Amino acid sequence: MFGAMQDWPLRLGRLFDHVAREHGTREIVSYQADGGTWRSNWAEAVADARRFAQALERLGIRPGDRVATLATNHLRHLIAWFGTIGMGGVLHTINPRLFDDQLAYIANHAEDRVLLYDPAFAPLVERLKPRLASIEHYIPLDDAFNALLVAEDGDYRWVEGDERAPAMLCYTSGTTGNPKGVLYEHRSTLLHMMGQVQPDVFNFSARTVTFPITPMFHANAWGLPFAAASVGAKLVLSMVNDPSVLHRLMIEEAVTHSCAVPTIWLAMLQHIEREGGDFGKLAMISCGGSAAPRAMIAEYLDRNIQFAHLWGMTELSPIGTVCALPADWDERDREARLDFVTKQGRTPFGVELRVVDEGGRELPRDGRASGRLQVRGPWTVDRYFQDEKGVCTDPDGWFDTGDVAVLHPDGMLQLTDRAKDVIKSGGEWISSVDLENAAIGCAGVAEAAAIGVSHPKWDERPLLLVVRKVGSEVDEEEVRTYLSTKVAKWWLPDAILFVDTLPHTGTGKLLKTALREQYRDYKLPDT
Amino acid sequence: MFGAMQDWPLRLGRLFDHVAREHGTREIVSYQADGGTWRSNWAEAVADARRFAQALERLGIRPGDRVATLATNHLRHLIAWFGTIGMGGVLHTINPRLFDDQLAYIANHAEDRVLLYDPAFAPLVERLKPRLASIEHYIPLDDAFNALLVAEDGDYRWVEGDERAPAMLCYTSGTTGNPKGVLYEHRSTLLHMMGQVQPDVFNFSARTVTFPITPMFHANAWGLPFAAASVGAKLVLSMVNDPSVLHRLMIEEAVTHSCAVPTIWLAMLQHIEREGGDFGKLAMISCGGSAAPRAMIAEYLDRNIQFAHLWGMTELSPIGTVCALPADWDERDREARLDFVTKQGRTPFGVELRVVDEGGRELPRDGRASGRLQVRGPWTVDRYFQDEKGVCTDPDGWFDTGDVAVLHPDGMLQLTDRAKDVIKSGGEWISSVDLENAAIGCAGVAEAAAIGVSHPKWDERPLLLVVRKVGSEVDEEEVRTYLSTKVAKWWLPDAILFVDTLPHTGTGKLLKTALREQYRDYKLPDT
Repeated sequence: MFGAMQDWPLRLGRLFDHVAREHGTREIVSYQADGGTWRSNWAEAVADARRFAQALERLGIRPGDRVATLATNHLRHLIAWFGTIGMGGVLHTINPRLFDDQLAYIANHAEDRVLLYDPAFAPLVERLKPRLASIEHYIPLDDAFNALLVAEDGDYRWVEGDERAPAMLCYTSGTTGNPKGVLYEHRSTLLHMMGQVQPDVFNFSARTVTFPITPMFHANAWGLPFAAASVGAKLVLSMVNDPSVLHRLMIEEAVTHSCAVPTIWLAMLQHIEREGGDFGKLAMISCGGSAAPRAMIAEYLDRNIQFAHLWGMTELSPIGTVCALPADWDERDREARLDFVTKQGRTPFGVELRVVDEGGRELPRDGRASGRLQVRGPWTVDRYFQDEKGVCTDPDGWFDTGDVAVLHPDGMLQLTDRAKDVIKSGGEWISSVDLENAAIGCAGVAEAAAIGVSHPKWDERPLLLVVRKVGSEVDEEEVRTYLSTKVAKWWLPDAILFVDTLPHTGTGKLLKTALREQYRDYKLPDT
Repeated sequence: MFGAMQDWPLRLGRLFDHVAREHGTREIVSYQADGGTWRSNWAEAVADARRFAQALERLGIRPGDRVATLATNHLRHLIAWFGTIGMGGVLHTINPRLFDDQLAYIANHAEDRVLLYDPAFAPLVERLKPRLASIEHYIPLDDAFNALLVAEDGDYRWVEGDERAPAMLCYTSGTTGNPKGVLYEHRSTLLHMMGQVQPDVFNFSARTVTFPITPMFHANAWGLPFAAASVGAKLVLSMVNDPSVLHRLMIEEAVTHSCAVPTIWLAMLQHIEREGGDFGKLAMISCGGSAAPRAMIAEYLDRNIQFAHLWGMTELSPIGTVCALPADWDERDREARLDFVTKQGRTPFGVELRVVDEGGRELPRDGRASGRLQVRGPWTVDRYFQDEKGVCTDPDGWFDTGDVAVLHPDGMLQLTDRAKDVIKSGGEWISSVDLENAAIGCAGVAEAAAIGVSHPKWDERPLLLVVRKVGSEVDEEEVRTYLSTKVAKWWLPDAILFVDTLPHTGTGKLLKTALREQYRDYKLPDT
């Protein structure tokens, strides 16, 4: 027996109709690379998206075909999103910061038929062209794009279809192996959006002025263009990420909500400390990508701005947890508030979390047991694009995030390490991140990296690599004595080596794979 | 081609697991008929719901079977909801205020197998028993219910199934014909819930303390128990609706959000004016059922309490529109704010509205064109229970609400009349409600009813029936002169008759069907 409510598939075209109809005059502001500011609104953007859908059909693009973008945050990029999705295509955002090999691999693997790109990326596109096998139409997002729109009448109804049909595609830039594509559905995107606007996630209303600094090529700007459309928020986009431009837009456009990675929020604070001024009407920051420092969060809280940590992944559309305010927020003093908001937060309905041991058995949510973090839900990846087999090999459909975490009894998530970096000693886990953070507190230590080195009895034991601060002569004994006051005795490294530099990835993270390779045959002192 | 995200059906059991896991210790407070206050929490309530699911299975109840309740708002009623839905049953709330004939019709039509009831309704149940054909188990919600729970171990996993499977059933108490059942799905209920918690609808977070005064048998208490569960709000329930009890609970339990019909909010104000005190932490009122008077809304706004009008129907789960704050709220003065919040509001994503003329053609959203209001969406009814044919006879699947309304360019809904009460004069519509409200403003008029009477030239013309205030001698000429300053000339009634009383329904509404019957052959003066 089925229920008796309407059959109304969760298709993104219905969202575009909704915002054009209910919030058509609400503004979209786009700060362009040339310093100009374009002002449009949801009704106009959706009308242009209809024209772009017609243009794509005229080019022979069909539902399911991939239309790629190499673009920053701006109005035409948004129109390209809505138009492609509305005609049943798959909008594939490509991160222009990747290496040429990765870019070519991604576009070929996705079998993109169209590539839209910012004029600034023209040299990159020219360089890549000989290596791109499937692209038939190269369209710069300038007057050429405009000419496509002008040629159409906009009398167009969105393509209907199954709510599980694909709408967007985004590749993860993993540190190992080839990038993997996550193929978002109409349904998954809309459920994510409905979860996202609630008070304990992004808290979006018709009074919101949202300014996603997060790139549109990075997990769909965390889905914010859709969230803004659903409530009729004013949307501010900027092609330029210079703190002075960002700050000016925040003030001039009366931004209330913004989101970015911690480095942006640090740069914004430094800008204001240097230049003066304040954050205007900014009421809420969503911050993800990596953990934000406590001292920086404190500065925002002291300015009466809510600072919400977000943990997510491309594979999660991207929202996993958000550190929204707890029930007892009003009763907490400043330090107790900071203790709370430095954690990764809790899951909204639609994300299930668990931690498991190496045998796949669920661990208690006791704030102590550390294990592999797994996720399940309607906006969690099932399989990567073009893969026959799902990534969720667990029989109950859990996706393994590759993170190691602790879950607290109140549902709070605390990330400890990446699974591949954890040091496995005698059946117990040592967090390489915790060990490194402890070592950095020792006077004279500039940077530290902890890796597991094989050990005949304990399986692995920690090796700590230390870069001294300029002029420091800190030695192994001093570091060891300091560490013994900070971590459990069995966590103490079996060896501490001093090195001149440590290898890093393009985004500044420690390249542990290289270190593990380099020290694979290292013999620990007592073996 | 399908997308590649997880297959995670929208089943209510997943919501129950979510709240028990993520917000288990958050309180549920139940004020009992005997004056006692029970304190529980979400983990305990869900654990008891598992036991009740086991008990139902032991009684031979199967997925799809209907389990009815005749009950007020309290913890055991909530446990019965979750347990029944979790084992795949259909929880059927029955409104105990209906007449015996309606109650018997509803229970028999639904083919209920179990009836749970408040001990206070035992005499009613005894009286009805001989007329109830399908009920096998009569279970009072007292120690007998508790004994069922105690007998089970609670080691139970919710029944899985299709997200379109039915979860709840609620009959509309229409003024014409037999009551009609709306069969809510797991999917429709969860999508409604996700739309509901957002800032511009009910604005629920983990800091919310919600107190639904709206009965659980009235469109599922507007879905609030589910909304509360999804965010981990504290839930306050009361079996008693006396203003002094409601007020005490609001203060003692630090209620932040509440909802009820306008009469309750008027009674609460009168209580506080009489007894002193304030509304404590109450921040937001949701008010539906009928339009709230401007003067009353002003009192709440002046106390810094957000007053959100809600328009809904049992057929809409029930949310249609909510009058949340507009983008320019901060710039509006008191009167401009009142102008806004006295309207019915806007639709969240998931509700589509349109007004059509008598030929079914869509009318412009210009703030002037008045027509039949139609609705579409994933939580709108498709067909009534046990009906083969859908109610949405429109080829595009629109549900006709039976209301007459105007839509404004900014998406605001303004209800004008019930379609069957509107007076059709020369192809134009006269709102009977507007005419009555205008007449009531005339000195000496206690009550007024406007109905259409057939007219050879204009099809229908208005007849106004007036009840004088005690001691008043107001006459036709005075009423007509007064009305001519309030309504268009062609709206003026062709006749005004003075009567001693007007007929009403059980809930105090004018019984227009009886009046139309009585005056069917009335000859207007100039015909």
